[in-house]
Amino acid sequence: MSEIVVQKFGGTSVGTVDRIDSVAEIIKNASKSNKIVVVVSAMGGETNRLVDLAKAFGDDPDKREFDALVSTGETVSSALLAMALHSKGVKAKSFSASQISMRTTSSYSKAKILDVDAKKILDVVENDTIPIITGFQGVTEGGDVTTLGRGGSDTTAVAIAAQIEAIRCDIYTDVDGIFTTDPSVVPNAKKLDSITMEEMLELAGQGAKVVQTRAVEFANKYKVPVKVLSSFNDGNGTLISLKDESMENALVSGIAFQKDLVKFTLHSVGDTPGTAFKILGPISDAEIEVDVIVQNVSIDDKTDFTFTVSNEDKEAVEKILIDLKTEVNYKELIINSDIAEVSLVGAGMRSQAGVASKAFKALSENDVNIQIICTSEIKITMVIDEALVDKAVNVLHDEFELEK
Amino acid sequence: MSEIVVQKFGGTSVGTVDRIDSVAEIIKNASKSNKIVVVVSAMGGETNRLVDLAKAFGDDPDKREFDALVSTGETVSSALLAMALHSKGVKAKSFSASQISMRTTSSYSKAKILDVDAKKILDVVENDTIPIITGFQGVTEGGDVTTLGRGGSDTTAVAIAAQIEAIRCDIYTDVDGIFTTDPSVVPNAKKLDSITMEEMLELAGQGAKVVQTRAVEFANKYKVPVKVLSSFNDGNGTLISLKDESMENALVSGIAFQKDLVKFTLHSVGDTPGTAFKILGPISDAEIEVDVIVQNVSIDDKTDFTFTVSNEDKEAVEKILIDLKTEVNYKELIINSDIAEVSLVGAGMRSQAGVASKAFKALSENDVNIQIICTSEIKITMVIDEALVDKAVNVLHDEFELEK
Repeated sequence: MSEIVVQKFGGTSVGTVDRIDSVAEIIKNASKSNKIVVVVSAMGGETNRLVDLAKAFGDDPDKREFDALVSTGETVSSALLAMALHSKGVKAKSFSASQISMRTTSSYSKAKILDVDAKKILDVVENDTIPIITGFQGVTEGGDVTTLGRGGSDTTAVAIAAQIEAIRCDIYTDVDGIFTTDPSVVPNAKKLDSITMEEMLELAGQGAKVVQTRAVEFANKYKVPVKVLSSFNDGNGTLISLKDESMENALVSGIAFQKDLVKFTLHSVGDTPGTAFKILGPISDAEIEVDVIVQNVSIDDKTDFTFTVSNEDKEAVEKILIDLKTEVNYKELIINSDIAEVSLVGAGMRSQAGVASKAFKALSENDVNIQIICTSEIKITMVIDEALVDKAVNVLHDEFELEK
Repeated sequence: MSEIVVQKFGGTSVGTVDRIDSVAEIIKNASKSNKIVVVVSAMGGETNRLVDLAKAFGDDPDKREFDALVSTGETVSSALLAMALHSKGVKAKSFSASQISMRTTSSYSKAKILDVDAKKILDVVENDTIPIITGFQGVTEGGDVTTLGRGGSDTTAVAIAAQIEAIRCDIYTDVDGIFTTDPSVVPNAKKLDSITMEEMLELAGQGAKVVQTRAVEFANKYKVPVKVLSSFNDGNGTLISLKDESMENALVSGIAFQKDLVKFTLHSVGDTPGTAFKILGPISDAEIEVDVIVQNVSIDDKTDFTFTVSNEDKEAVEKILIDLKTEVNYKELIINSDIAEVSLVGAGMRSQAGVASKAFKALSENDVNIQIICTSEIKITMVIDEALVDKAVNVLHDEFELEK
């Protein structure tokens, strides 16, 4: 069998029947040089339409029912895309999560992929038929329908690519690739021809919303090369490469930023082993993704523990932390929603001490105060006032001459 | 466990979120006196919306994909109805055909029910939870999604009622019950409090579109009492009873009619054993439902073989008959789409010879020519010119004084 490429098409790529027709053309062309497996999102706007229907029955619908409801969007688009391919003389068959045993945990709306029936998919491919698989959907051991959360279709695509040993996973979106930062904030942001998996992982995690974080994690773990392309324009897109050669000389390859965050600080926590786990364990159990975690050195055996989560998890986290007050014994809980994160990402950064100070200097000269700093080997994350994000991103983009 | 009633709600009954809310109220009230299992259709208009999407890719979409597509309508309404019940404090869970193993044949868009996992449904009921099951959907042995054809949700409901040994299947619609004939054609048509299963079977088969034919067949076979009620107005509806006592004295209990038919006549067929099978076998294999079949006495070992099918099957049947020309050796194929059937139905008719002649006389006095006559024990079917249907129904309704 010739080599397999997984192609994933997002909601805007299949937003109308005309768009679905264009996507079918892309698939048809690609199928001339590779075996193709397709993963598809719901038609743009459809998931929101379904969510609105659910809202008629309260703000907090039962999650099992909610997932059964919203997952229908992908079933619709996969069937329509199969029909579009048939109309072009291409053999194709749609498959729901249940039909390819895309098993997940039972955390509705935030389910995690456990396993998928690779043989079923490969049998279809061997029969010269293109499987059109619903993204976003999963199914529990007991047969209940789950969803992977917004953007989950990327993860579906990469997980399938890993399981069927595809040579590449092409993620088609409405942008031409990965840019040094958001072009809507910095007009001369530059498209990258390639980026390392690690850099992408840091960028995605920080809200360079092109590819979903979990998808990049999967790609990283299973060594699946991912390419990001536009389904609207021709172009080579950005290859997220397995090796980090490509960026050897670049100190900073991109700038990510994320708004809609909330910062929780537990003031004056006892600095004893297990405290961090006591705090983050229940949050993790609730399937809430934590972003930055910062704990500074302790003074008098007391420390401040700070972390950020997505704004939508604010109330859930607040409740958990209030319940933990006695056990963790913190003095005060400080919550701040007017914050944002800005991150410099670059594989070349790891051996360079000067990047951080250069960034801090540039921001300070432009009156951007940095509330929190947190660095990894290839990333420097700064938490700043939400109102200053656009300014900060432009300052840093100029400072590191990313437009070149 | 207390006795179980299956409640089925059609598309108009769940056409909007407000309607879904009203239906949840009906279910909640019913759940005070019985255990309830619900079967639900797609929201009114939704199936058409999905069909229109499919049409973008040709007039004859792949049936497997078509079924995967249109079946999503029921998944949406079942999840929403479960949410509506939750909002009223009632425990409920939606189930797709796949989740309750509603196994069917693989005749897409016209699938027939083979089996359903009664234990799974009863386990939910025993747990004081109302299962909200998608009507219309099925699943093949191989896990492909099928649909039962338009109106198939009625059949789903009765099949489930039979399998879980429910005491009754309540079919909620937008009419108050079964009438002596269509009130839009005969304004003083009268609602019947009860009707026998046999009469209903004949009425449904002839287009008294309140309950689907196959559903009544199922009910008849498995002895499930069916009640037809309105989800819009209070009222006792019409009970389709197992015994035919109720109608003992009524000669004619109702008049059914059906337009959108096409009549095929194979002129001058050899009257040898097996001819009828040779003709109808391939049509049955194509899952096409044949309505009236008439073959008159033969003259010189030649006869005319006539039958009617739904207009939508016209081309398929025509093709089959042309392919059969050599084998069946008919002289000419006559096709007529401008016809309709009008039927008098009544359990009391079987011992009464006078009904037919009374009907024929009334029609002839009103210039309605009868093309074909075909009688069973409790039904007289007449094929007439399509343009004369309304007139014929009114004449017969008056003649048999059904308004009383």
